[in-house]
Amino acid sequence: MEKDTTKDVTDSVNYFTKWFKSIDWDAVISKVISVGLEILVLIILYFILKYAGSKIIKSFFKKYRRNPAVSNNRADTLEGLILNFYGYVLFFVFAILILQNFINVTAIIAGAGVASLAIAFGAQGLVSDVVTGFFILLERQLDVGDSITLDTVNGYVENLGLRTTQVRDFDGTLHFIPNRQIMIVSNHSRGNMRVLVDVAISPKADTEKAIQIIEQICEAEKNTNKNIVEMPTVLGVESSDGTNQVIRIVGTAVNGEQFGVQRDLLKKIREALLQAEIDLPIATPIVKTAQA
Amino acid sequence: MEKDTTKDVTDSVNYFTKWFKSIDWDAVISKVISVGLEILVLIILYFILKYAGSKIIKSFFKKYRRNPAVSNNRADTLEGLILNFYGYVLFFVFAILILQNFINVTAIIAGAGVASLAIAFGAQGLVSDVVTGFFILLERQLDVGDSITLDTVNGYVENLGLRTTQVRDFDGTLHFIPNRQIMIVSNHSRGNMRVLVDVAISPKADTEKAIQIIEQICEAEKNTNKNIVEMPTVLGVESSDGTNQVIRIVGTAVNGEQFGVQRDLLKKIREALLQAEIDLPIATPIVKTAQA
Amino acid sequence: MEKDTTKDVTDSVNYFTKWFKSIDWDAVISKVISVGLEILVLIILYFILKYAGSKIIKSFFKKYRRNPAVSNNRADTLEGLILNFYGYVLFFVFAILILQNFINVTAIIAGAGVASLAIAFGAQGLVSDVVTGFFILLERQLDVGDSITLDTVNGYVENLGLRTTQVRDFDGTLHFIPNRQIMIVSNHSRGNMRVLVDVAISPKADTEKAIQIIEQICEAEKNTNKNIVEMPTVLGVESSDGTNQVIRIVGTAVNGEQFGVQRDLLKKIREALLQAEIDLPIATPIVKTAQA
Amino acid sequence: MEKDTTKDVTDSVNYFTKWFKSIDWDAVISKVISVGLEILVLIILYFILKYAGSKIIKSFFKKYRRNPAVSNNRADTLEGLILNFYGYVLFFVFAILILQNFINVTAIIAGAGVASLAIAFGAQGLVSDVVTGFFILLERQLDVGDSITLDTVNGYVENLGLRTTQVRDFDGTLHFIPNRQIMIVSNHSRGNMRVLVDVAISPKADTEKAIQIIEQICEAEKNTNKNIVEMPTVLGVESSDGTNQVIRIVGTAVNGEQFGVQRDLLKKIREALLQAEIDLPIATPIVKTAQA
Amino acid sequence: MEKDTTKDVTDSVNYFTKWFKSIDWDAVISKVISVGLEILVLIILYFILKYAGSKIIKSFFKKYRRNPAVSNNRADTLEGLILNFYGYVLFFVFAILILQNFINVTAIIAGAGVASLAIAFGAQGLVSDVVTGFFILLERQLDVGDSITLDTVNGYVENLGLRTTQVRDFDGTLHFIPNRQIMIVSNHSRGNMRVLVDVAISPKADTEKAIQIIEQICEAEKNTNKNIVEMPTVLGVESSDGTNQVIRIVGTAVNGEQFGVQRDLLKKIREALLQAEIDLPIATPIVKTAQA
Amino acid sequence: MEKDTTKDVTDSVNYFTKWFKSIDWDAVISKVISVGLEILVLIILYFILKYAGSKIIKSFFKKYRRNPAVSNNRADTLEGLILNFYGYVLFFVFAILILQNFINVTAIIAGAGVASLAIAFGAQGLVSDVVTGFFILLERQLDVGDSITLDTVNGYVENLGLRTTQVRDFDGTLHFIPNRQIMIVSNHSRGNMRVLVDVAISPKADTEKAIQIIEQICEAEKNTNKNIVEMPTVLGVESSDGTNQVIRIVGTAVNGEQFGVQRDLLKKIREALLQAEIDLPIATPIVKTAQA
Amino acid sequence: MEKDTTKDVTDSVNYFTKWFKSIDWDAVISKVISVGLEILVLIILYFILKYAGSKIIKSFFKKYRRNPAVSNNRADTLEGLILNFYGYVLFFVFAILILQNFINVTAIIAGAGVASLAIAFGAQGLVSDVVTGFFILLERQLDVGDSITLDTVNGYVENLGLRTTQVRDFDGTLHFIPNRQIMIVSNHSRGNMRVLVDVAISPKADTEKAIQIIEQICEAEKNTNKNIVEMPTVLGVESSDGTNQVIRIVGTAVNGEQFGVQRDLLKKIREALLQAEIDLPIATPIVKTAQA
Repeated sequence: MEKDTTKDVTDSVNYFTKWFKSIDWDAVISKVISVGLEILVLIILYFILKYAGSKIIKSFFKKYRRNPAVSNNRADTLEGLILNFYGYVLFFVFAILILQNFINVTAIIAGAGVASLAIAFGAQGLVSDVVTGFFILLERQLDVGDSITLDTVNGYVENLGLRTTQVRDFDGTLHFIPNRQIMIVSNHSRGNMRVLVDVAISPKADTEKAIQIIEQICEAEKNTNKNIVEMPTVLGVESSDGTNQVIRIVGTAVNGEQFGVQRDLLKKIREALLQAEIDLPIATPIVKTAQA
Repeated sequence: MEKDTTKDVTDSVNYFTKWFKSIDWDAVISKVISVGLEILVLIILYFILKYAGSKIIKSFFKKYRRNPAVSNNRADTLEGLILNFYGYVLFFVFAILILQNFINVTAIIAGAGVASLAIAFGAQGLVSDVVTGFFILLERQLDVGDSITLDTVNGYVENLGLRTTQVRDFDGTLHFIPNRQIMIVSNHSRGNMRVLVDVAISPKADTEKAIQIIEQICEAEKNTNKNIVEMPTVLGVESSDGTNQVIRIVGTAVNGEQFGVQRDLLKKIREALLQAEIDLPIATPIVKTAQA
Repeated sequence: MEKDTTKDVTDSVNYFTKWFKSIDWDAVISKVISVGLEILVLIILYFILKYAGSKIIKSFFKKYRRNPAVSNNRADTLEGLILNFYGYVLFFVFAILILQNFINVTAIIAGAGVASLAIAFGAQGLVSDVVTGFFILLERQLDVGDSITLDTVNGYVENLGLRTTQVRDFDGTLHFIPNRQIMIVSNHSRGNMRVLVDVAISPKADTEKAIQIIEQICEAEKNTNKNIVEMPTVLGVESSDGTNQVIRIVGTAVNGEQFGVQRDLLKKIREALLQAEIDLPIATPIVKTAQA
Repeated sequence: MEKDTTKDVTDSVNYFTKWFKSIDWDAVISKVISVGLEILVLIILYFILKYAGSKIIKSFFKKYRRNPAVSNNRADTLEGLILNFYGYVLFFVFAILILQNFINVTAIIAGAGVASLAIAFGAQGLVSDVVTGFFILLERQLDVGDSITLDTVNGYVENLGLRTTQVRDFDGTLHFIPNRQIMIVSNHSRGNMRVLVDVAISPKADTEKAIQIIEQICEAEKNTNKNIVEMPTVLGVESSDGTNQVIRIVGTAVNGEQFGVQRDLLKKIREALLQAEIDLPIATPIVKTAQA
Repeated sequence: MEKDTTKDVTDSVNYFTKWFKSIDWDAVISKVISVGLEILVLIILYFILKYAGSKIIKSFFKKYRRNPAVSNNRADTLEGLILNFYGYVLFFVFAILILQNFINVTAIIAGAGVASLAIAFGAQGLVSDVVTGFFILLERQLDVGDSITLDTVNGYVENLGLRTTQVRDFDGTLHFIPNRQIMIVSNHSRGNMRVLVDVAISPKADTEKAIQIIEQICEAEKNTNKNIVEMPTVLGVESSDGTNQVIRIVGTAVNGEQFGVQRDLLKKIREALLQAEIDLPIATPIVKTAQA
Repeated sequence: MEKDTTKDVTDSVNYFTKWFKSIDWDAVISKVISVGLEILVLIILYFILKYAGSKIIKSFFKKYRRNPAVSNNRADTLEGLILNFYGYVLFFVFAILILQNFINVTAIIAGAGVASLAIAFGAQGLVSDVVTGFFILLERQLDVGDSITLDTVNGYVENLGLRTTQVRDFDGTLHFIPNRQIMIVSNHSRGNMRVLVDVAISPKADTEKAIQIIEQICEAEKNTNKNIVEMPTVLGVESSDGTNQVIRIVGTAVNGEQFGVQRDLLKKIREALLQAEIDLPIATPIVKTAQA
Repeated sequence: MEKDTTKDVTDSVNYFTKWFKSIDWDAVISKVISVGLEILVLIILYFILKYAGSKIIKSFFKKYRRNPAVSNNRADTLEGLILNFYGYVLFFVFAILILQNFINVTAIIAGAGVASLAIAFGAQGLVSDVVTGFFILLERQLDVGDSITLDTVNGYVENLGLRTTQVRDFDGTLHFIPNRQIMIVSNHSRGNMRVLVDVAISPKADTEKAIQIIEQICEAEKNTNKNIVEMPTVLGVESSDGTNQVIRIVGTAVNGEQFGVQRDLLKKIREALLQAEIDLPIATPIVKTAQA
């Protein structure tokens, strides 16, 4: 500590300014402009290809839809998917071409350093999305327009992508679901649906008579309602306690019409039972944990 | 910064246009066509093999089903499985052949870079699916048509695959369940099923008499109902409080008929108790958290 | 772009047809037949060994069961286990022998590429199954026929395997549980079981008298019911509020008979209390969240 | 142990003081000052660049917003995002430049020691955030100002970033959500929304008449309320028990106005039913598990 | 395809039979017998060592228990543990010796192929078991006979092992808990336990008088009941609403006697309050979600 | 076994004592003292630096707070953070310097053995803490004194650290939350807050009149209460059933005053409705699942 | 198969017995004794060091506690911790010294085989425990004797260790919590605590008068109860419905006395309200989900 610190400071400042001057500013600027131009050209090319590609795909599907053997839903699914796939491929090809100017992308993708490890961990979600999405499409689990349940989401399929599935909720909300979140696909648009009505009557009412009345209504309904596939039949007394006894009716309806048929049956059975003077259950509330 | 920047720009543009001209466009186009042809041939071959293979498998099973010793469910299971397996193998073989033109697939599969790590993480779900599916089939845990419970899904098995199992819900919904989601397989179609009826009567009613009446009905039912395997017997008073006492009856029925037998017993016991003037439980509602 | 593209196409087609012709179809066919024959021989051998082995194991256990010192449950457990183990070993040995013709199995098992990583991730479930199963067997936590609770499944053990445990539910359902899902094994078939009865009486009833009556019944029951191990004793008033007071009785019964003893005690105590004119609790419902 | 320990102590102290004197304090101080200056310059540069960059970005968006074809929400989204991205890039570039003086950052990023492993594990959350955020933006799942539900959070999007999304709750709370927490994006601002009203009336009231009245009100409302898109229609009797029957009405409203339309309809239907002397449901409370 | 395929088949068959004949069956048989003998000797040795070792350990603990300074529970814990440990070490040493004949066990344990990776993943549960078990023992968290709660299991510790802990439930069930499942050990057998009684009286009853009566009973109880450690004292009015007010009493009892003391206090306080004509709470049921 | 075992024993003992004597006890002691001294010096230095550093930081912030443009909360946040950061850096630098004497810390940090793997797994929590904490600070999600919700914890921020955040609960409890546990930060101190009051009246009361009265009160309140930002307006009838109809009022208040405004409005509206003789809802309890 | 198998057997037996005889039994025995002696010496040394070390630490803390500036809780914390740390270090040093005789411990710790991988996976829990424990201590989140909540456990801290924290529940149970299970530390012994009382009165009672009475009592209580820090003030009407209105009172009490103050206030307010003839809420039960 014999020397004065002022000299140290001067030395350090000199050292720093020398380093600053030593940079070849011309080369830097020239490089910046060259790279900028390349990026510009790539971006313009990207938009041209994107626009042209989408045009071609859409016009192809316009013709494809005229084919009467092709369902509209299937065509929508395919068109959306191909557009989605084309968009991603284009985006990543150009993104890598542009990034190439700044970092050695290939080296990172092949490497095993911290960065690549972190990327591998972070990107596994993306890979899972694509793998799951791929099989959902390959196995045709979903079509655009299907009524489905995915995890906690209900609604109609709006769009199928490699990475995300878009579902339009019955209340109008649009859900974006990463495919990896899709565990069990429950598709309500594949085949006829069950009709199930539970009718509760007073515990001391005449069960036989009630069942007869219900059966007559089911018979009549079968003949008049073309949405019914299998005639609803009375299964019997499902449960019974001090306040009511429950009679269960089960049948089959055309896909998508099951709720309408149920409401119809419920209303008609109710009116018939009231006419026949079969008592309602004893008027104590069924205490429910209300939902929503 | 002595030089003018205009020159820098001109240099950069020159550099870029030179690079653009230097590309051998002939070679590029020739390569594109050659690859395109190869892919076309592969795709045609794929569809021929797929069609022919399915045909052969199906016609084989047509003969196989004539064999009286073979249950239809088992034949369905095997046919679906073999078709599914054949489809996947064909698909992946041709997919790799086609991809081979673009990327060095073998290198990636053998490599250890970021991409392969990410793929390994992402694909472990797929491997889990196949491993689990394989053992479900090997241990014959499921047959097409079985009534089952898998996790939260109830229904009939519609199709068994290496990767997914399709279950038709009782309400008509079709569930696609990746095999790895299947933890515990609960198969309701393997052997006779229990019949269990709980009858509630007034807390001060004559228990002995009620039990006698119920036993007579069980006896009679056993003789007339061929779906009953073991005669239902009265276990005794299961619980008892200020509003009712519960008598439990247990027996065994032919697989699939247990609910019908329960409804039958419930209705007959109820009528007999009302005739014998044994009181219903005190008419206060049992407050339930209603489900659905 | 000076050359005409037609020539490019012709070149490509030529290139492709040359490659097609260059394949040695004879060698391919000969190889296919040779491999086919080998697989056939292996499959036949597999079935012979499987049949013979099972036969030998079963006949051995037939003799083994005649030994009076051996419990039937233990013999069932061992027989099922050995058959299961023999089946898996045979299956995998032959599977690897057959696969050997198509892929270099040893290389994959020893390698560290993506495929093997994915397999390792996917197969860890299988290894966990076997490790857990191995210790369940080694520590004799379960025997065939035991009444158990595994996670959410109740029932009797039907079969014990290295990979899965089969449990027959009390309602007849057959559960297949991969061993790795088995966290805590709760075995209800190991030693005497507790008998616990809670009797509710009116809040203003004479507690001392009620306890006396209950103690007399316990005394009597102990003498007549040979399923009781330890005489049930009255612990005292467990809880008490504005509508009832609860008296708790605890004893021990022979394994499997505890529920019968409880039902018996409940019925007798109830009758005695009604005779002695000790009031039931005030008749307000206990609101329960009903289960099932 | 023949030597005295005092000598050991003296030796050790000497050894230690020698080491202390041997340090070249001049070099240390000079180095400290030089590094300090460099850091100072970097920090000043950082603030200049940050200020200038933000200024330029904001003034650009000022002009961009004048473009009538551009929605304000989209402009806000883009401006916030670009500012956010610019801020992060600047921060990390300068942070690495400064850290470079103390640790060999490149070595750590490329290395595979414990530190880098720990960093890779710890940083995977960060990478997941950025990957997820990137796709949310690319797929335009959210715009600033959208009404959304993310996991358990409801509100309006306040800001979209690469790492976090800021959501303003309806009650004024500001939520910061790391993008990786965003599983399913439920966007309530994309298209028309459903209007759903459930009207409960007495179980013995005249259903036909009630439905007629409700339909007249819906008709009138459709004509006067411009927020209604699709006329609300009566679906029928949704459910019915001993205390009430529920009539369901469904329609469509302009996005964001659905709750107002529902309140309006509810009030008018209620008044009309009271006027027409159609009874309210029997006055027993619906027992709910109150929320909040 | 000029050659006839028959020749191909003949060639293949020849090739196959040659391979079959080329095997040195003598060497195979000799090897099988030699290995069989070695395994036999090892198995016999294993059973001898197991029997002898257990004998020695048990006889040692017989003497050890005579030492009056040693608690029985501790001796049980140690004996069970050492037997368990000895059994596992013996088993694995001999298992590896026998397996050595079939596979190169050392190579697998040291290797890094798929098999070993899968084993490492699968076996981590086992290692976790042993590590956790080791610390539970080292820190003496449990002794055989302690009343404990582990996760969802209540009961008495029956056996402590390196891999599993056996707990006898109060209802007689025997739980086998892998040590890794043991998160928080809650030991109810370490020191005195709290006595807590909540007494509900009518909302308009004289609180001061009730507290006085309760305090007298606590005083008296303290003098007569030797299980009480700290005299129960009245904390005051814990809560109060339209139907009742709750008075809380807290004290300390000898470990294991707290429930008896609580029941005792409850009964005596109740009788005293009824005698003093202090009203019970208004007779409306407290609606509970009943458990079990 | 021809030799006597006594000789073996003697040999072994000799071997052991030789090894014991061969240790250079002088060197050991000298080393121990030298290391001890170094550690002592390091510890003293640590405490000096810690004390001096804290002093300097605190005095700096004393001056910084006099700056009127700086909010107190922000200054507290920064001061706490810098002290926290300084403390950790100092601690770890000295900890490594001291550990250096015992283990080769650098080797472990760079190594890839079991120890380092275990450390990497174990320490990832720490890294996650710091990474998350860093971004919470960088994005200014929290300030000391903010009212927040983190996961299940509510309260005021007491201290922000790189590893833990301290939150003072409204009931006085101090929560220490590792930053990695902080998923969604919900900050209640950023901007005005909503005021929401639900008023329930009798189902047959005059809705129009009630709304008029409420609107008058809102108007008056707006003029007198300076905490109100946006005048509360009546949205309309939110819901309606057999026992009540609910009118919803919504407005905005100054941050932190929203609950006071709500209580105020509730009280005044209630009084006005009672004066205007608008009936309360029918007096049946709303059954709630009580919390705490 | 020309040779007789007898010769094979004889050969095998000869081979085996030769191998058996070839073992140098002398060397084996000598080695066993030598190792045994070394272990014995190590074990004796371990117990001496453990005993002596504990003695020294305890006597040091005896003196340390006499220092009046040191709180007893802090001294307990430090003493327990140092004993715990000393015990573990000693244990592991000697354990490794002993194991060294059997396995090459260093090799395993440095290695990367299956065993070490499995150990690394299994041991990460241990490392997590120590890392978390270390920071809990460093940041002084807990002291022995503090009233705390850790996850689901409530109680007083009994002992703080590097690996486990012991908490004495209020009911006397002793919980052993591995430190890694400790997520959020909620310490109830750091500063004054809130006092919160909710008083419910009849919905039509005079609110103003009730608030006046409560305020008088709060005033009086503040003057007489020295445990109150901040005078409790009436916040206003918290909620109101058809059966009651709730008035909330909030203040601050000395740490640990908050529950006593609450009980006191509740009792006095209740009495005052009854005297002033302000009605209790309408006597309908609040239905709670009873806890324990």
